[in-house]
Amino acid sequence: MYQIMETKERVLADNNAAAAETRAQMQESGALLVNLMGSPGAGKTSVLLNLIRLLQDDCAIGVMEADVDSDVDAKTMQEAGVRVIQLHTAGLCHMDADMTKRGLDAMGIDGLDLIFLENIGNLVCPAEFEIGADLRMMLLSVPEGDDKPLKYPLMFSVSDVLLFNKMDTLPVFDFDVEKASARAKALNPAIVIFPVSAKRGEGFEPVASLLKE
Amino acid sequence: MYQIMETKERVLADNNAAAAETRAQMQESGALLVNLMGSPGAGKTSVLLNLIRLLQDDCAIGVMEADVDSDVDAKTMQEAGVRVIQLHTAGLCHMDADMTKRGLDAMGIDGLDLIFLENIGNLVCPAEFEIGADLRMMLLSVPEGDDKPLKYPLMFSVSDVLLFNKMDTLPVFDFDVEKASARAKALNPAIVIFPVSAKRGEGFEPVASLLKE
Repeated sequence: MYQIMETKERVLADNNAAAAETRAQMQESGALLVNLMGSPGAGKTSVLLNLIRLLQDDCAIGVMEADVDSDVDAKTMQEAGVRVIQLHTAGLCHMDADMTKRGLDAMGIDGLDLIFLENIGNLVCPAEFEIGADLRMMLLSVPEGDDKPLKYPLMFSVSDVLLFNKMDTLPVFDFDVEKASARAKALNPAIVIFPVSAKRGEGFEPVASLLKE
Repeated sequence: MYQIMETKERVLADNNAAAAETRAQMQESGALLVNLMGSPGAGKTSVLLNLIRLLQDDCAIGVMEADVDSDVDAKTMQEAGVRVIQLHTAGLCHMDADMTKRGLDAMGIDGLDLIFLENIGNLVCPAEFEIGADLRMMLLSVPEGDDKPLKYPLMFSVSDVLLFNKMDTLPVFDFDVEKASARAKALNPAIVIFPVSAKRGEGFEPVASLLKE
Protein backbone atom coordinates (compact mmCIF):
# COMPACT_ATOMS: atom_id res chain seq x y z
CA MET A 1 0.00 0.00 0.00
CA TYR A 2 1.27 3.48 -0.81
CA GLN A 3 1.64 6.21 1.79
CA ILE A 4 -0.44 9.36 1.98
CA MET A 5 1.51 12.33 3.32
CA GLU A 6 -0.17 15.58 4.34
CA THR A 7 2.10 18.47 3.44
CA LYS A 8 1.26 22.06 4.25
CA GLU A 9 -1.71 24.10 5.30
CA ARG A 10 -2.20 27.07 3.09
CA VAL A 11 -1.86 30.29 5.02
CA LEU A 12 -4.57 32.48 3.58
CA ALA A 13 -4.39 36.23 3.64
CA ASP A 14 -7.41 37.48 5.46
CA ASN A 15 -9.26 39.43 2.86
CA ASN A 16 -12.71 39.29 4.40
CA ALA A 17 -12.81 42.99 5.22
CA ALA A 18 -12.14 44.03 1.62
CA ALA A 19 -14.67 41.47 0.34
CA ALA A 20 -17.31 42.81 2.72
CA GLU A 21 -16.62 46.37 1.53
CA THR A 22 -17.08 45.30 -2.08
CA ARG A 23 -20.28 43.46 -1.21
CA ALA A 24 -21.64 46.61 0.46
CA GLN A 25 -20.56 48.74 -2.50
CA MET A 26 -22.39 46.40 -4.89
CA GLN A 27 -25.53 46.42 -2.75
CA GLU A 28 -25.53 50.20 -2.72
CA SER A 29 -24.99 50.50 -6.47
CA GLY A 30 -27.51 47.78 -7.33
CA ALA A 31 -25.02 46.05 -9.64
CA LEU A 32 -24.46 42.30 -9.59
CA LEU A 33 -20.84 41.12 -9.36
CA VAL A 34 -20.11 37.69 -10.84
CA ASN A 35 -16.84 35.87 -10.19
CA LEU A 36 -16.22 33.64 -13.23
CA MET A 37 -13.74 30.84 -12.63
CA GLY A 38 -12.42 27.78 -14.44
CA SER A 39 -9.33 26.02 -15.78
CA PRO A 40 -7.13 27.50 -18.49
CA GLY A 41 -8.94 26.93 -21.77
CA ALA A 42 -12.29 26.00 -20.20
CA GLY A 43 -13.89 28.76 -22.28
CA LYS A 44 -14.39 31.65 -19.83
CA THR A 45 -14.03 34.38 -22.46
CA SER A 46 -16.28 32.61 -24.98
CA VAL A 47 -18.93 32.02 -22.31
CA LEU A 48 -18.81 35.72 -21.42
CA LEU A 49 -19.28 36.69 -25.08
CA ASN A 50 -22.41 34.53 -25.22
CA LEU A 51 -23.84 36.05 -22.05
CA ILE A 52 -23.02 39.57 -23.23
CA ARG A 53 -24.80 38.88 -26.55
CA LEU A 54 -27.97 37.85 -24.67
CA LEU A 55 -27.85 40.51 -21.97
CA GLN A 56 -26.38 43.72 -23.35
CA ASP A 57 -29.68 45.09 -24.70
CA ASP A 58 -31.15 44.99 -21.19
CA CYS A 59 -28.12 45.53 -18.94
CA ALA A 60 -25.11 47.81 -18.80
CA ILE A 61 -22.21 45.36 -18.49
CA GLY A 62 -18.67 45.78 -17.19
CA VAL A 63 -15.93 43.16 -17.44
CA MET A 64 -12.71 42.94 -15.42
CA GLU A 65 -10.25 40.68 -17.24
CA ALA A 66 -7.69 39.24 -14.84
CA ASP A 67 -4.62 37.79 -16.47
CA VAL A 68 -1.14 36.91 -15.37
CA ASP A 69 0.00 38.75 -18.47
CA SER A 70 -1.32 39.79 -21.92
CA ASP A 71 -4.50 41.64 -22.77
CA VAL A 72 -5.97 39.48 -25.54
CA ASP A 73 -9.23 39.00 -23.62
CA ALA A 74 -9.71 42.70 -22.87
CA LYS A 75 -9.39 43.44 -26.59
CA THR A 76 -12.08 40.84 -27.30
CA MET A 77 -14.38 42.38 -24.67
CA GLN A 78 -13.85 45.88 -25.99
CA GLU A 79 -14.88 44.67 -29.44
CA ALA A 80 -18.03 43.20 -27.84
CA GLY A 81 -18.94 46.72 -26.74
CA VAL A 82 -18.79 46.47 -22.94
CA ARG A 83 -16.87 48.54 -20.41
CA VAL A 84 -13.64 46.66 -19.67
CA ILE A 85 -10.49 46.85 -17.60
CA GLN A 86 -7.49 44.56 -17.87
CA LEU A 87 -6.00 43.53 -14.50
CA HIS A 88 -2.49 42.14 -14.47
CA THR A 89 -1.71 39.95 -11.47
CA ALA A 90 2.01 39.86 -12.27
CA GLY A 91 2.34 36.14 -11.66
CA LEU A 92 -0.27 35.76 -8.95
CA CYS A 93 -2.56 32.80 -9.54
CA HIS A 94 -5.84 34.33 -8.42
CA MET A 95 -7.60 37.61 -7.72
CA ASP A 96 -8.12 38.58 -4.10
CA ALA A 97 -10.64 40.99 -2.61
CA ASP A 98 -8.27 43.93 -2.46
CA MET A 99 -7.22 43.64 -6.10
CA THR A 100 -10.87 43.26 -7.10
CA LYS A 101 -11.84 46.37 -5.16
CA ARG A 102 -9.09 48.38 -6.84
CA GLY A 103 -10.16 47.01 -10.22
CA LEU A 104 -13.76 48.09 -9.63
CA ASP A 105 -12.62 51.56 -8.57
CA ALA A 106 -10.32 51.93 -11.57
CA MET A 107 -12.93 50.71 -14.10
CA GLY A 108 -15.75 52.69 -12.48
CA ILE A 109 -19.06 51.01 -11.70
CA ASP A 110 -21.38 53.99 -12.21
CA GLY A 111 -24.33 53.04 -14.37
CA LEU A 112 -23.43 49.35 -14.56
CA ASP A 113 -26.01 46.63 -13.84
CA LEU A 114 -23.82 43.56 -14.22
CA ILE A 115 -20.08 43.18 -13.63
CA PHE A 116 -18.07 40.09 -14.45
CA LEU A 117 -14.64 39.30 -13.08
CA GLU A 118 -12.97 36.79 -15.37
CA ASN A 119 -10.60 35.23 -12.86
CA ILE A 120 -7.22 33.60 -13.61
CA GLY A 121 -7.55 30.16 -15.22
CA ASN A 122 -7.04 27.94 -12.19
CA LEU A 123 -9.22 25.48 -10.23
CA VAL A 124 -7.36 25.88 -6.94
CA CYS A 125 -6.48 29.36 -5.69
CA PRO A 126 -9.44 31.43 -6.92
CA ALA A 127 -11.72 29.16 -4.87
CA GLU A 128 -9.94 30.18 -1.68
CA PHE A 129 -10.21 33.92 -2.11
CA GLU A 130 -13.57 35.63 -1.53
CA ILE A 131 -13.72 38.74 -3.68
CA GLY A 132 -17.11 39.95 -2.50
CA ALA A 133 -19.06 38.60 -5.49
CA ASP A 134 -22.82 38.14 -5.42
CA LEU A 135 -22.53 35.03 -7.56
CA ARG A 136 -19.76 32.55 -8.15
CA MET A 137 -19.95 30.87 -11.53
CA MET A 138 -17.51 28.14 -12.55
CA LEU A 139 -16.89 26.31 -15.79
CA LEU A 140 -15.96 22.70 -16.23
CA SER A 141 -15.33 21.86 -19.87
CA VAL A 142 -16.03 18.39 -21.19
CA PRO A 143 -12.39 17.69 -22.26
CA GLU A 144 -11.20 18.21 -18.66
CA GLY A 145 -12.98 15.07 -17.49
CA ASP A 146 -15.82 14.20 -15.12
CA ASP A 147 -13.43 13.44 -12.24
CA LYS A 148 -12.53 17.08 -11.59
CA PRO A 149 -14.94 17.51 -8.60
CA LEU A 150 -12.95 14.75 -6.87
CA LYS A 151 -9.64 16.53 -7.46
CA TYR A 152 -10.56 20.17 -6.97
CA PRO A 153 -13.42 19.89 -4.46
CA LEU A 154 -13.23 23.39 -2.99
CA MET A 155 -13.98 25.10 -6.30
CA PHE A 156 -17.15 23.03 -6.72
CA SER A 157 -18.09 23.59 -3.06
CA VAL A 158 -17.93 27.38 -3.20
CA SER A 159 -19.63 27.92 -6.59
CA ASP A 160 -23.30 28.83 -6.97
CA VAL A 161 -23.52 28.03 -10.66
CA LEU A 162 -21.65 25.40 -12.68
CA LEU A 163 -21.59 25.43 -16.47
CA PHE A 164 -20.54 22.27 -18.31
CA ASN A 165 -18.98 23.89 -21.38
CA LYS A 166 -17.95 22.40 -24.76
CA MET A 167 -20.98 20.07 -24.69
CA ASP A 168 -20.61 19.84 -28.49
CA THR A 169 -17.47 17.73 -27.92
CA LEU A 170 -19.24 15.10 -25.80
CA PRO A 171 -18.95 12.41 -28.52
CA VAL A 172 -15.15 12.77 -28.52
CA PHE A 173 -14.50 12.45 -24.78
CA ASP A 174 -15.30 10.01 -21.96
CA PHE A 175 -17.24 12.60 -19.99
CA ASP A 176 -20.25 11.27 -18.09
CA VAL A 177 -22.59 14.21 -17.45
CA GLU A 178 -24.53 12.30 -14.80
CA LYS A 179 -21.36 11.35 -12.92
CA ALA A 180 -19.94 14.87 -13.08
CA SER A 181 -23.25 16.34 -11.85
CA ALA A 182 -23.57 13.81 -9.03
CA ARG A 183 -19.98 14.48 -7.91
CA ALA A 184 -20.54 18.26 -7.92
CA LYS A 185 -23.84 17.93 -6.07
CA ALA A 186 -22.31 15.60 -3.48
CA LEU A 187 -19.96 18.46 -2.58
CA ASN A 188 -22.55 21.21 -2.98
CA PRO A 189 -26.23 20.16 -3.14
CA ALA A 190 -27.35 23.74 -3.93
CA ILE A 191 -25.17 24.14 -7.02
CA VAL A 192 -27.15 24.95 -10.19
CA ILE A 193 -25.83 23.22 -13.31
CA PHE A 194 -26.30 24.23 -16.96
CA PRO A 195 -24.88 22.38 -19.98
CA VAL A 196 -23.71 24.85 -22.65
CA SER A 197 -21.66 25.11 -25.81
CA ALA A 198 -19.97 28.48 -26.12
CA LYS A 199 -18.71 27.59 -29.59
CA ARG A 200 -22.23 26.88 -30.88
CA GLY A 201 -23.92 29.51 -28.68
CA GLU A 202 -26.22 26.87 -27.19
CA GLY A 203 -27.75 26.64 -23.71
CA PHE A 204 -27.15 30.22 -22.50
CA GLU A 205 -30.76 31.47 -22.33
CA PRO A 206 -31.47 30.02 -18.85
CA VAL A 207 -28.11 31.31 -17.57
CA ALA A 208 -28.91 34.80 -18.88
CA SER A 209 -32.38 34.63 -17.25
CA LEU A 210 -30.82 33.71 -13.92
CA LEU A 211 -28.46 36.71 -14.14
CA LYS A 212 -31.31 39.09 -15.06
CA GLU A 213 -33.18 38.07 -11.92
CA MET B 1 -9.23 52.55 -24.74
CA TYR B 2 -9.33 50.34 -21.67
CA GLN B 3 -6.91 50.67 -18.78
CA ILE B 4 -4.26 48.16 -17.82
CA MET B 5 -3.64 48.06 -14.07
CA GLU B 6 -0.70 46.22 -12.55
CA THR B 7 -1.77 44.67 -9.25
CA LYS B 8 0.58 42.80 -6.99
CA GLU B 9 4.00 41.27 -7.15
CA ARG B 10 3.96 37.72 -5.93
CA VAL B 11 6.15 37.30 -2.90
CA LEU B 12 7.85 33.97 -3.52
CA ALA B 13 9.14 31.83 -0.73
CA ASP B 14 12.82 31.26 -1.30
CA ASN B 15 13.04 27.55 -1.79
CA ASN B 16 16.31 27.49 -3.70
CA ALA B 17 18.25 25.82 -0.90
CA ALA B 18 15.87 22.87 -0.71
CA ALA B 19 15.83 22.58 -4.53
CA ALA B 20 19.63 22.54 -4.60
CA GLU B 21 19.69 19.80 -1.96
CA THR B 22 17.29 17.70 -4.01
CA ARG B 23 19.34 18.28 -7.14
CA ALA B 24 22.47 17.10 -5.32
CA GLN B 25 20.61 14.09 -3.92
CA MET B 26 19.46 13.13 -7.42
CA GLN B 27 22.95 13.52 -8.86
CA GLU B 28 24.36 11.26 -6.15
CA SER B 29 21.67 8.60 -6.61
CA GLY B 30 21.83 8.71 -10.41
CA ALA B 31 18.05 8.99 -10.66
CA LEU B 32 16.34 11.48 -12.97
CA LEU B 33 13.62 13.65 -11.41
CA VAL B 34 10.94 14.92 -13.79
CA ASN B 35 8.48 17.66 -12.80
CA LEU B 36 5.30 17.04 -14.82
CA MET B 37 3.00 20.06 -15.05
CA GLY B 38 -0.17 21.06 -16.89
CA SER B 39 -3.75 22.28 -16.51
CA PRO B 40 -6.44 20.24 -14.77
CA GLY B 41 -7.56 17.59 -17.25
CA ALA B 42 -4.61 18.07 -19.63
CA GLY B 43 -3.87 14.34 -19.27
CA LYS B 44 -0.91 14.19 -16.88
CA THR B 45 -1.85 10.80 -15.41
CA SER B 46 -2.60 9.25 -18.83
CA VAL B 47 0.69 10.57 -20.21
CA LEU B 48 2.53 9.01 -17.27
CA LEU B 49 0.84 5.66 -17.87
CA ASN B 50 2.07 5.72 -21.48
CA LEU B 51 5.63 6.56 -20.45
CA ILE B 52 5.59 3.89 -17.73
CA ARG B 53 4.40 1.30 -20.28
CA LEU B 54 7.37 2.12 -22.55
CA LEU B 55 10.01 2.50 -19.83
CA GLN B 56 9.29 0.13 -16.99
CA ASP B 57 11.14 -2.86 -18.51
CA ASP B 58 14.35 -0.81 -18.56
CA CYS B 59 13.95 1.57 -15.61
CA ALA B 60 12.84 1.35 -12.00
CA ILE B 61 10.20 4.09 -11.78
CA GLY B 62 8.80 6.04 -8.85
CA VAL B 63 5.84 8.42 -9.00
CA MET B 64 4.88 11.16 -6.54
CA GLU B 65 1.25 12.10 -7.06
CA ALA B 66 0.54 15.59 -5.76
CA ASP B 67 -3.11 16.41 -5.27
CA VAL B 68 -5.05 18.98 -3.35
CA ASP B 69 -7.16 16.09 -2.16
CA SER B 70 -8.12 12.51 -3.21
CA ASP B 71 -5.85 9.64 -4.17
CA VAL B 72 -7.42 8.44 -7.42
CA ASP B 73 -4.17 8.92 -9.35
CA ALA B 74 -2.03 7.07 -6.80
CA LYS B 75 -4.36 4.06 -7.10
CA THR B 76 -3.95 4.16 -10.89
CA MET B 77 -0.15 4.30 -10.55
CA GLN B 78 -0.10 1.43 -8.07
CA GLU B 79 -2.05 -0.67 -10.55
CA ALA B 80 0.56 0.21 -13.19
CA GLY B 81 3.17 -1.45 -10.97
CA VAL B 82 5.42 1.46 -10.02
CA ARG B 83 6.50 2.74 -6.61
CA VAL B 84 4.12 5.55 -5.65
CA ILE B 85 3.40 8.05 -2.90
CA GLN B 86 0.37 10.32 -2.68
CA LEU B 87 1.17 13.86 -1.51
CA HIS B 88 -1.68 15.98 -0.23
CA THR B 89 -1.05 19.72 -0.47
CA ALA B 90 -4.13 20.55 1.65
CA GLY B 91 -5.30 23.33 -0.62
CA LEU B 92 -1.92 24.55 -1.83
CA CYS B 93 -1.85 25.08 -5.57
CA HIS B 94 1.64 23.78 -6.30
CA MET B 95 4.48 21.68 -4.91
CA ASP B 96 7.50 23.50 -3.55
CA ALA B 97 11.03 22.21 -3.07
CA ASP B 98 10.58 21.39 0.61
CA MET B 99 7.43 19.34 0.07
CA THR B 100 9.13 17.56 -2.83
CA LYS B 101 12.15 16.72 -0.68
CA ARG B 102 9.96 15.31 2.05
CA GLY B 103 8.00 13.34 -0.55
CA LEU B 104 11.20 11.81 -1.94
CA ASP B 105 12.37 10.89 1.55
CA ALA B 106 9.02 9.35 2.46
CA MET B 107 8.70 7.36 -0.77
CA GLY B 108 12.37 6.31 -0.73
CA ILE B 109 14.49 6.70 -3.85
CA ASP B 110 16.81 3.71 -3.37
CA GLY B 111 17.06 1.68 -6.55
CA LEU B 112 15.01 4.08 -8.64
CA ASP B 113 16.22 5.30 -12.05
CA LEU B 114 13.38 7.64 -12.93
CA ILE B 115 11.10 9.64 -10.63
CA PHE B 116 8.09 11.64 -11.77
CA LEU B 117 6.39 14.32 -9.73
CA GLU B 118 2.87 14.79 -11.06
CA ASN B 119 2.32 18.37 -9.96
CA ILE B 120 -1.02 20.02 -9.13
CA GLY B 121 -3.08 20.81 -12.25
CA ASN B 122 -2.27 24.50 -12.67
CA LEU B 123 -0.45 26.59 -15.30
CA VAL B 124 0.57 29.37 -12.91
CA CYS B 125 2.04 28.49 -9.51
CA PRO B 126 4.00 25.30 -10.28
CA ALA B 127 6.03 27.30 -12.82
CA GLU B 128 7.26 29.62 -10.07
CA PHE B 129 8.52 26.97 -7.67
CA GLU B 130 11.76 25.16 -8.47
CA ILE B 131 11.61 21.69 -6.94
CA GLY B 132 15.10 20.60 -7.94
CA ALA B 133 14.00 18.58 -10.99
CA ASP B 134 16.41 17.56 -13.73
CA LEU B 135 13.71 17.98 -16.35
CA ARG B 136 10.56 20.06 -16.49
CA MET B 137 7.91 18.59 -18.75
CA MET B 138 4.62 20.36 -19.39
CA LEU B 139 1.45 19.38 -21.19
CA LEU B 140 -0.78 21.58 -23.28
CA SER B 141 -3.85 19.71 -24.47
CA VAL B 142 -5.49 20.60 -27.75
CA PRO B 143 -8.88 21.55 -26.19
CA GLU B 144 -7.17 24.24 -24.07
CA GLY B 145 -6.36 26.31 -27.15
CA ASP B 146 -3.23 27.51 -28.95
CA ASP B 147 -3.26 30.90 -27.16
CA LYS B 148 -2.12 29.49 -23.81
CA PRO B 149 1.57 30.49 -24.23
CA LEU B 150 0.35 34.11 -24.44
CA LYS B 151 -1.62 33.81 -21.20
CA TYR B 152 0.64 31.63 -19.06
CA PRO B 153 4.07 32.57 -20.41
CA LEU B 154 6.16 31.58 -17.38
CA MET B 155 5.16 27.91 -17.56
CA PHE B 156 6.28 27.73 -21.20
CA SER B 157 9.47 29.68 -20.41
CA VAL B 158 10.64 27.34 -17.64
CA SER B 159 9.79 24.00 -19.29
CA ASP B 160 12.36 21.86 -21.10
CA VAL B 161 9.84 19.62 -22.83
CA LEU B 162 6.32 20.43 -24.05
CA LEU B 163 3.85 17.73 -25.03
CA PHE B 164 0.82 18.69 -27.11
CA ASN B 165 -1.64 16.08 -25.80
CA LYS B 166 -5.04 14.94 -27.13
CA MET B 167 -3.80 15.29 -30.71
CA ASP B 168 -6.58 12.85 -31.67
CA THR B 169 -9.10 15.67 -31.00
CA LEU B 170 -7.48 18.12 -33.43
CA PRO B 171 -10.40 17.89 -35.91
CA VAL B 172 -12.83 19.05 -33.19
CA PHE B 173 -10.96 22.16 -31.98
CA ASP B 174 -9.51 25.33 -33.47
CA PHE B 175 -5.99 24.49 -32.34
CA ASP B 176 -3.22 25.57 -34.68
CA VAL B 177 -0.16 23.40 -33.95
CA GLU B 178 2.15 25.75 -35.82
CA LYS B 179 0.89 28.81 -33.95
CA ALA B 180 1.10 27.08 -30.56
CA SER B 181 4.65 25.89 -31.33
CA ALA B 182 5.76 29.31 -32.54
CA ARG B 183 4.32 31.00 -29.44
CA ALA B 184 6.05 28.53 -27.11
CA LYS B 185 9.36 28.86 -28.98
CA ALA B 186 9.15 32.65 -28.93
CA LEU B 187 9.18 32.41 -25.13
CA ASN B 188 11.66 29.55 -24.96
CA PRO B 189 13.65 28.76 -28.12
CA ALA B 190 15.19 25.63 -26.53
CA ILE B 191 11.88 23.95 -25.67
CA VAL B 192 11.47 20.50 -27.25
CA ILE B 193 7.94 19.79 -28.49
CA PHE B 194 6.28 16.42 -29.05
CA PRO B 195 2.71 15.88 -30.30
CA VAL B 196 1.10 12.90 -28.52
CA SER B 197 -2.22 11.23 -27.88
CA ALA B 198 -2.36 9.59 -24.46
CA LYS B 199 -5.77 8.10 -25.26
CA ARG B 200 -4.46 6.33 -28.38
CA GLY B 201 -0.98 5.72 -26.99
CA GLU B 202 0.60 7.55 -29.93
CA GLY B 203 3.77 9.61 -30.12
CA PHE B 204 5.45 8.55 -26.87
CA GLU B 205 8.45 6.63 -28.25
CA PRO B 206 10.64 9.73 -28.81
CA VAL B 207 9.68 11.07 -25.36
CA ALA B 208 10.64 7.76 -23.75
CA SER B 209 13.95 7.78 -25.66
CA LEU B 210 14.72 11.26 -24.40
CA LEU B 211 14.08 10.16 -20.81
CA LYS B 212 16.28 7.06 -21.20
CA GLU B 213 19.19 9.26 -22.28
